Amino acid sequence: MFEAAELGRKLDKKTYKNRINSLRAELLQAQFALANSNRPVIILVGGADNSSKGELVNKLNEWLDTRGLEVHAFGQKTDEESERPRFWRYWRCLPAKGRIGIFSSSWYTGTIYQRAFGTISKSKFDRHMRRINSLETMLVKDGALILKFWLHMSKSHQKAQFKALEKDPDSRWIVSPLDKKLHKNYDDHIKAAERAIRLTDNATAPWLIIEAEDEAYRDMTVGETVLAALQQASSKATTKEEITSLAIKEPSAEQKSILNELNLDQALSKPDYEAQLQRLQKKLTRLSWEAYHQKVTTVLVFEGWDASGKGGAIRRIMQAVDARISRVISIAAPTDEERAHHYLWRFWRHIPKAGKVIIYDRSWYGRVLVERVEGFANDDEWRRAYLEINDFEEQLCDHGLNLQKFWLHIDKDEQLDRFNERQEIEYKQHKITDEDWRNRERWDDYVGAVNDMVVKTSTDYAPWTLVPANDKKSARIKVLQTVCDSLEQALERRKKENKG
Amino acid sequence: MFEAAELGRKLDKKTYKNRINSLRAELLQAQFALANSNRPVIILVGGADNSSKGELVNKLNEWLDTRGLEVHAFGQKTDEESERPRFWRYWRCLPAKGRIGIFSSSWYTGTIYQRAFGTISKSKFDRHMRRINSLETMLVKDGALILKFWLHMSKSHQKAQFKALEKDPDSRWIVSPLDKKLHKNYDDHIKAAERAIRLTDNATAPWLIIEAEDEAYRDMTVGETVLAALQQASSKATTKEEITSLAIKEPSAEQKSILNELNLDQALSKPDYEAQLQRLQKKLTRLSWEAYHQKVTTVLVFEGWDASGKGGAIRRIMQAVDARISRVISIAAPTDEERAHHYLWRFWRHIPKAGKVIIYDRSWYGRVLVERVEGFANDDEWRRAYLEINDFEEQLCDHGLNLQKFWLHIDKDEQLDRFNERQEIEYKQHKITDEDWRNRERWDDYVGAVNDMVVKTSTDYAPWTLVPANDKKSARIKVLQTVCDSLEQALERRKKENKG
Repeated sequence: MFEAAELGRKLDKKTYKNRINSLRAELLQAQFALANSNRPVIILVGGADNSSKGELVNKLNEWLDTRGLEVHAFGQKTDEESERPRFWRYWRCLPAKGRIGIFSSSWYTGTIYQRAFGTISKSKFDRHMRRINSLETMLVKDGALILKFWLHMSKSHQKAQFKALEKDPDSRWIVSPLDKKLHKNYDDHIKAAERAIRLTDNATAPWLIIEAEDEAYRDMTVGETVLAALQQASSKATTKEEITSLAIKEPSAEQKSILNELNLDQALSKPDYEAQLQRLQKKLTRLSWEAYHQKVTTVLVFEGWDASGKGGAIRRIMQAVDARISRVISIAAPTDEERAHHYLWRFWRHIPKAGKVIIYDRSWYGRVLVERVEGFANDDEWRRAYLEINDFEEQLCDHGLNLQKFWLHIDKDEQLDRFNERQEIEYKQHKITDEDWRNRERWDDYVGAVNDMVVKTSTDYAPWTLVPANDKKSARIKVLQTVCDSLEQALERRKKENKG
Repeated sequence: MFEAAELGRKLDKKTYKNRINSLRAELLQAQFALANSNRPVIILVGGADNSSKGELVNKLNEWLDTRGLEVHAFGQKTDEESERPRFWRYWRCLPAKGRIGIFSSSWYTGTIYQRAFGTISKSKFDRHMRRINSLETMLVKDGALILKFWLHMSKSHQKAQFKALEKDPDSRWIVSPLDKKLHKNYDDHIKAAERAIRLTDNATAPWLIIEAEDEAYRDMTVGETVLAALQQASSKATTKEEITSLAIKEPSAEQKSILNELNLDQALSKPDYEAQLQRLQKKLTRLSWEAYHQKVTTVLVFEGWDASGKGGAIRRIMQAVDARISRVISIAAPTDEERAHHYLWRFWRHIPKAGKVIIYDRSWYGRVLVERVEGFANDDEWRRAYLEINDFEEQLCDHGLNLQKFWLHIDKDEQLDRFNERQEIEYKQHKITDEDWRNRERWDDYVGAVNDMVVKTSTDYAPWTLVPANDKKSARIKVLQTVCDSLEQALERRKKENKG
């Protein structure tokens, strides 16, 4: 989920300086317009420990008019608070219509901590998130504008910052025992946050994930996003209507995407490739039979550019897995019967019995890729598909399936070379169609769609693996390695369950 | 929740006979129209054991064209099913567009049983319901029409039927061991069903609770409701749009309501009243102090007709509870500050600290009573208020509060007598205003609003008590008795918690 917030976004000083004064003026103007509207504004600022939440809140406090603003933080419950139901402390701090409330910790914070430390169960956690959904929906329907920012920093950056803080005698006091404990549990904390965001990222109050390592970028992005939202909120004639198109507003024209940042300069010598291929295929044969006997089902999803080498990668897997316990499903246009059902029905149909290896050559992700880009699915349909797909995959994984998803990435030049080669070599001509050339024209649209797909559907239970595939050999090895690793882990989990 | 389905609704033979042939013809016509539309129709038939689900399903099967129809039931999982995720068995049975699927057991059934037998936790149960909500929402957004019927029979009727079945050697074989087990757990079963219905009763796929004791009424009501829904579904130009006004269609003009069925012929002699009053007030004094020390908070909500005696009943309670540990909150028009927040904010504000007795003279139910009837809240606002209120009250009760709600009911004549009396007696004149007379004109609208309120917000954790109040003395005793009983139970629960 946070992959797209680790691309090293920065804002140069000049751009910042050129914009900052006008931004501040516009923010104040928008805030005054808001005061006359009928909407309260709630700004939640979340993030892992030490992710500069405090700095951002201070900045907003500096930029906005504090007379129409309240800042709240929630720590340990007071006596007054613990004598009342859980949400009482938040209700008392909700801003009135026309005012802005900034929550530097919120109804999410405590529950995410509890999950990170393992003191509440997944079910209880989910129940709390359901309650949050009810609360936020209720407020939005009543006219509130809710902006939920999550400040993200990579683990390595966090670590470096933390160490620096602890070393410096002038800042060491900032680090509390809770911070230390949190930092130790960084991975669990991020995992809990991911789940919280996924369960509460809805159209009425979406999460906005901000890459937070560069201060200028962070502040300016949040500032621009708040500005755009305030302007939209106060300009609406019907005050009670929902604001549906809340999105991050980038402060500069440069748009980063996960795919474009992927390093495609991978290469593997032929002897190295042969050696690794043999080793991994042998391993996969062994693991797939073991999985069959242990009834661990594996589902592998392959998506990628035309001519990115999906077929070749799939063949290398099938060479290792016995045909009796595996199957490749190629997804083409749906049949009549399939078209007469919900688009997920055709995938539910093919769910394998326990123990098999099923490979999807293209998949349900068509909904948010080709159907989105070509307009076969309307806006509403592909937007809600992310949640639907996450829910579908969670059900598979809850049942114990091992689900791995691969995007094979090549650049535009490489694709052109491969297209041309296919047209020249007779036995490859069937592999290239007019449609491939048409898809190529929509390259940038697909980049955006893939970016959203990876951000919104990379979950702890079903992650995406982005495979640099300009070099076919290294791509195949990366896929095989990932499949073997995931199978080993799945078998390990099954062993534990059988014991437990 | 099921109060409104225990009013003894019946349909006479003549009305049934006059309508049945045309109904069947219209149903078939509607089914053909549906086949050309783009909608699948899903009809779920739920109900406690032995609530005649089977008979109803057979009747629908007889009335509709079976070529466009599938009937499904789900018992123990097959081998095939248990090797796949839980919902796989339902997905494979979903009807295609233009077809009707009748589910005589469904994605609800197993989970409700499990909860009734205590084999899954509340959190897991809730999680399953959340998943059902996702599934149903997904299908409805894709164009499906979902009708969820719950057939209700009173406990006593169920019991009699069950005994008769068991006695008769010709029918004894119908009763399975599971049925016997279920019947023993009737109350738990109903409680689990109530929770399931409450958590999944949403605008996109609402529950339709049918009083099922009279066969003719049951079949005709379901038939008319299905017909109206099919007609609406196939007449829509935009097939993907949600159908929002699904409601039960009564087969005859006569409309029953909870209030009108209430027996108002209660009377208590003065000496009896005095004796009971003294006994109950003494008891309440003792219980309220004990609750104070045990930190058990009590919230009593009073709603009722103008001049129904709320004030008098409240005074009898306050005479018994020390002023230092109690408070009466009279709800009038909201203040400016309150108006600038969500309507529930003013009630969250006043949530008492632990141990007190708080009495609301009118309450948050104004939203679905006066605000609904007078149009102060729009349709959307009061309709969603039921869920919001249930959620609010659940949070109070999860925190350990004892919440009791009273509706004081008098009939129209009694109200007129009291109004006249108030106008004649000088020291009572301040109690009667023009508004009271205006409200009286909307009597029937209020009856409908009260009926909906009780059905939709009577929960296992916060039940409504309907108090027949034509006789003031017996009304006061009933209120005091209910308060004492609830306090005793709440203290009992607290004792267990402290031990546990």
